[in-house]
Amino acid sequence: MIEAALFGAGRIGKIHAANLARQSGVRLKYVVDVHADSAQALAQQHGASVTSVEAALADPAIGAVLIASSTDTHADLIVRAAAAGKAIFCEKPVDLTLARARAAADAVRQAGVLCMIGFQRRYDPTFAAVKARLQAGEIGVPEVLNVTSRDPGAPPVSYIKVSGGIFKDMLIHDFDICRWILDDEAASVYATGSCLTDPAIGEAGDLDSAVVTIRTRGGRLCQINASRRAAYGYDQRFEILGSAGMLQAGNHKPTEVTAYTALNVSQDKPEHFFLERYRAAYADEIAHFFDAMINGTPLRTTVDDGLKALELAEAATTSWREKCVVNL
Amino acid sequence: MIEAALFGAGRIGKIHAANLARQSGVRLKYVVDVHADSAQALAQQHGASVTSVEAALADPAIGAVLIASSTDTHADLIVRAAAAGKAIFCEKPVDLTLARARAAADAVRQAGVLCMIGFQRRYDPTFAAVKARLQAGEIGVPEVLNVTSRDPGAPPVSYIKVSGGIFKDMLIHDFDICRWILDDEAASVYATGSCLTDPAIGEAGDLDSAVVTIRTRGGRLCQINASRRAAYGYDQRFEILGSAGMLQAGNHKPTEVTAYTALNVSQDKPEHFFLERYRAAYADEIAHFFDAMINGTPLRTTVDDGLKALELAEAATTSWREKCVVNL
Amino acid sequence: MIEAALFGAGRIGKIHAANLARQSGVRLKYVVDVHADSAQALAQQHGASVTSVEAALADPAIGAVLIASSTDTHADLIVRAAAAGKAIFCEKPVDLTLARARAAADAVRQAGVLCMIGFQRRYDPTFAAVKARLQAGEIGVPEVLNVTSRDPGAPPVSYIKVSGGIFKDMLIHDFDICRWILDDEAASVYATGSCLTDPAIGEAGDLDSAVVTIRTRGGRLCQINASRRAAYGYDQRFEILGSAGMLQAGNHKPTEVTAYTALNVSQDKPEHFFLERYRAAYADEIAHFFDAMINGTPLRTTVDDGLKALELAEAATTSWREKCVVNL
Amino acid sequence: MIEAALFGAGRIGKIHAANLARQSGVRLKYVVDVHADSAQALAQQHGASVTSVEAALADPAIGAVLIASSTDTHADLIVRAAAAGKAIFCEKPVDLTLARARAAADAVRQAGVLCMIGFQRRYDPTFAAVKARLQAGEIGVPEVLNVTSRDPGAPPVSYIKVSGGIFKDMLIHDFDICRWILDDEAASVYATGSCLTDPAIGEAGDLDSAVVTIRTRGGRLCQINASRRAAYGYDQRFEILGSAGMLQAGNHKPTEVTAYTALNVSQDKPEHFFLERYRAAYADEIAHFFDAMINGTPLRTTVDDGLKALELAEAATTSWREKCVVNL
Repeated sequence: MIEAALFGAGRIGKIHAANLARQSGVRLKYVVDVHADSAQALAQQHGASVTSVEAALADPAIGAVLIASSTDTHADLIVRAAAAGKAIFCEKPVDLTLARARAAADAVRQAGVLCMIGFQRRYDPTFAAVKARLQAGEIGVPEVLNVTSRDPGAPPVSYIKVSGGIFKDMLIHDFDICRWILDDEAASVYATGSCLTDPAIGEAGDLDSAVVTIRTRGGRLCQINASRRAAYGYDQRFEILGSAGMLQAGNHKPTEVTAYTALNVSQDKPEHFFLERYRAAYADEIAHFFDAMINGTPLRTTVDDGLKALELAEAATTSWREKCVVNL
Repeated sequence: MIEAALFGAGRIGKIHAANLARQSGVRLKYVVDVHADSAQALAQQHGASVTSVEAALADPAIGAVLIASSTDTHADLIVRAAAAGKAIFCEKPVDLTLARARAAADAVRQAGVLCMIGFQRRYDPTFAAVKARLQAGEIGVPEVLNVTSRDPGAPPVSYIKVSGGIFKDMLIHDFDICRWILDDEAASVYATGSCLTDPAIGEAGDLDSAVVTIRTRGGRLCQINASRRAAYGYDQRFEILGSAGMLQAGNHKPTEVTAYTALNVSQDKPEHFFLERYRAAYADEIAHFFDAMINGTPLRTTVDDGLKALELAEAATTSWREKCVVNL
Repeated sequence: MIEAALFGAGRIGKIHAANLARQSGVRLKYVVDVHADSAQALAQQHGASVTSVEAALADPAIGAVLIASSTDTHADLIVRAAAAGKAIFCEKPVDLTLARARAAADAVRQAGVLCMIGFQRRYDPTFAAVKARLQAGEIGVPEVLNVTSRDPGAPPVSYIKVSGGIFKDMLIHDFDICRWILDDEAASVYATGSCLTDPAIGEAGDLDSAVVTIRTRGGRLCQINASRRAAYGYDQRFEILGSAGMLQAGNHKPTEVTAYTALNVSQDKPEHFFLERYRAAYADEIAHFFDAMINGTPLRTTVDDGLKALELAEAATTSWREKCVVNL
Repeated sequence: MIEAALFGAGRIGKIHAANLARQSGVRLKYVVDVHADSAQALAQQHGASVTSVEAALADPAIGAVLIASSTDTHADLIVRAAAAGKAIFCEKPVDLTLARARAAADAVRQAGVLCMIGFQRRYDPTFAAVKARLQAGEIGVPEVLNVTSRDPGAPPVSYIKVSGGIFKDMLIHDFDICRWILDDEAASVYATGSCLTDPAIGEAGDLDSAVVTIRTRGGRLCQINASRRAAYGYDQRFEILGSAGMLQAGNHKPTEVTAYTALNVSQDKPEHFFLERYRAAYADEIAHFFDAMINGTPLRTTVDDGLKALELAEAATTSWREKCVVNL
């Protein structure tokens, strides 16, 4: 029986706790959160108890920690959990600064512990199927990737101010998709963007609409477009052109109803937001983490993946600010 | 806290047990099955104990019974559970004979207990959305309904021999869809069919391909086509033409991948079979049953619905055998 | 150079004249119409002259006649054109009565002339592709056919009164599709229907909503549903289940625009009506007719096909009126 | 009656001649081509005669010239036709060099003649519908445009060597789409690309895979991706995100057949290449040209549009070669 501690009892922490509860051979022992009430409520729901980070890491019965607390705590918790010899699951991003993220990655390497970063999109049934079919050679060699990544609406400006900016906060996922699907590292990055949906985002020094071009070492091409606001909801698609065809990953819909009226023929909008769209992905990533712990399955999203995506986000931010192409 | 007994620990019994476990305020106390091992395994998984029908019905702590045992036991168990004053959830069909089904419905009526029949398709997100939009008037008054109902492959002939025939075993669901969507009762039924996929089915006195036409009292029209075998998998669709448009309920797909090759543009086949396609429906019907028990929400699929669908199956069987139109 | 006479300068006559003009080696010499103005206008547009039926048939230079005049003239014109040794293209139906239609077919047979009936749907690119792929064995042996056939709105009641009824006027096309796709003749026909869209249609002794079931000699099954009114436009689809899969023929859309809004994801309604949907089919059938004349290509839609479809329409009418199954 | 001269009797010249023949009030008088046989054949087919450029331009009866000869002749023919006071329809591009293109535009301006550039995509029913719905405000203010533009296969390397490169030869259309859909001029252009499909293209100094990012003066964003080779055929799509939704222009398919097999659910690939996909567009652009001549309708694709698209192609070429962002 693996006993686990969960750091963070917020929205995503609750999802991880529920998915953890479905793993056989795994038990949630502790919940830690700066908000005592949240910690208490979630602990009670899962038969766990509330404790502190120190106590959780000091308990030799704890084999795994799940880090779902605020971004600024990730790197420090990784370092401490690694030192304590725990297997680590950590939400993206590793950190907003490359230096701290590298330190966390170093700590993991030195400790020789498992450390999985929660790039949940790789576990989405549709995205994972594209990757599997690509690897099976269905469309030959990958050439050009196009990624569309749009939220239904922007978070509060107060959040945007501490988010690290659109490239680190939002496109970090898309940079990971780029590396994963093209199976190649970036040689150059170009990014630009605008503030088109809410001037307050621009005043906070950020963009709400961003486009990025990545050329890989092997000459493969990737275009990413992202927006903080799509009137029709959460838009999460990509398409990969290969030498023998193309694979598209499309949006998921709540139902398969088609309506024919005097006006048009319509179907449902995409599923509303990430909690709906990536419900299966969140379940699968937690299953994968414990599968890696129990059966030694190689981790599919490591702390190095977290680091590499952050390097791309950093490069894109520089490209945008300095209006130039950044070579890596 | 509602305590429940489950009769039947087979494939569908396991699904109900898992869904029951997610209801708050509900606990599975007993599992009953003629196969002691199956009962024991399922009971253990859910912290329940194994007992007999008699003991379960005699226990005053039991508020609800879920009947998921073989078809020939349904009517008898309904009668006994009703006599014991339990709320009843029973898999379709109520029985293969109208007389016994009517007796069960009478027992429920006399006892004044809740009795829900597991027409799970009404709880499917896509089907339920069509019904809700129809009721909201989105396509005006319903006129013509077309139902396609195909299994990926036929069950063993040994099962077909005791199944009651394709109309009672398979189209019973589609007859319920007809009544539910057209919101009208049948005035006439015409059925015909063929044995096209496996001669052994014909030798067993049954059809593997059947088509039914229902004209309702209000003149609405319904066509159903069913097959025991579709090479591309489980095909569960219907479309309803109304005075102001049409609503289609389509199949669900495992992923939203589209592949473009030199050959064609392709997507996934429909989800394989009923366990995949109606996963959400099975969960929602159990939630609805306990919601009805706890909050008094009116049952959406009653024992009378079970009876009416069986009457249509009986009429269709007669129409096919006697090559005539059956008026109701 | 083949010289042709066109009987009928109405809506469909104009289409045939335009398509004829695109055939190399073919020239429109005469236009005949009871409305002198219509005849004159169309003749002028195509460099033809106006004449009478007698004169046209008496002109030995005329190799082909195209009959696009009113239904009640078809059989008589076929008989006379056959006697004059002309190749004949005639709009559906051959006639509204079986006796006259059979007489026309006999005349064609005796004269040994070409006689093609304008079942244009067989020449529709989508429908023709389904047939070709079916013949290529792509889905194995055909088993069950479902045909949906809906007009955007009913014609005037004055037309309905002389139309021969919905089965001869509208479903005649669908009966032809049934014979063509299943490649088998009907053994039994069952039809029913209602008047749901306009009481005046019922008062005229007709239906506006009809459903038909055909079982072929080989046990194949066909369901047809037809309506005089679909709020979303012209609906012309069919799907054929075979032992190895299914082929669907879908509607054509004016454009390939998809709109995503806060409400839904929508596309165009189907092309409005038969002139739009079957534009390519009308062109291809005329090309086929002259190809048969010039190169001896076997006719794909003969006067016998016209006869057989009419027999099915007659049987369906009887089935509906007498509320019984009609065996053929 | 407008009399017209056609310069160029090749593939595209034949299409223009056929479309011209359908315009009422217009007659093709002359065909000019350096290949006498081609000129003769096309002239004969349309009742025109063969002549020289000089003679055609000297004939005062000629009101319009259609320039469909090789790219290197366009600018010179525009200048001469403008001087002769003829209305001009010219295939894209105006020229491969900005200087000559500007000279042609100047000549048109000074002569005050009509000059339409054949950006036929603007006349495609799907693309034109997106533009119309955008102008009608259906998705609010345009923000982000994504254009996919892929050929089924590369032209011979001998052609590529004189083509002006992928940006002037192929993306010129996409640059026009960008200006047309965003209704804004470029402020900066970034382009990169690779040679991924055929090394011979790279050896010829060109790319076969290119991606471009345009930021407009108003901050709108455009991403274009283009490839000389898509295994699945001609891929011509774009999608425009607006403040209130998104409009997608999709590919056209030859038929509306859907096939369900044990493998998958498939539809047709896109129409093969530009002659199929833009058949309606070519017809509509010629109708528009003569409508502008006859009725004074404002031209929708002027010589200035030709110039502006060329400026973007030039900027993209520079960006790619110098690996920098080009500001305009």
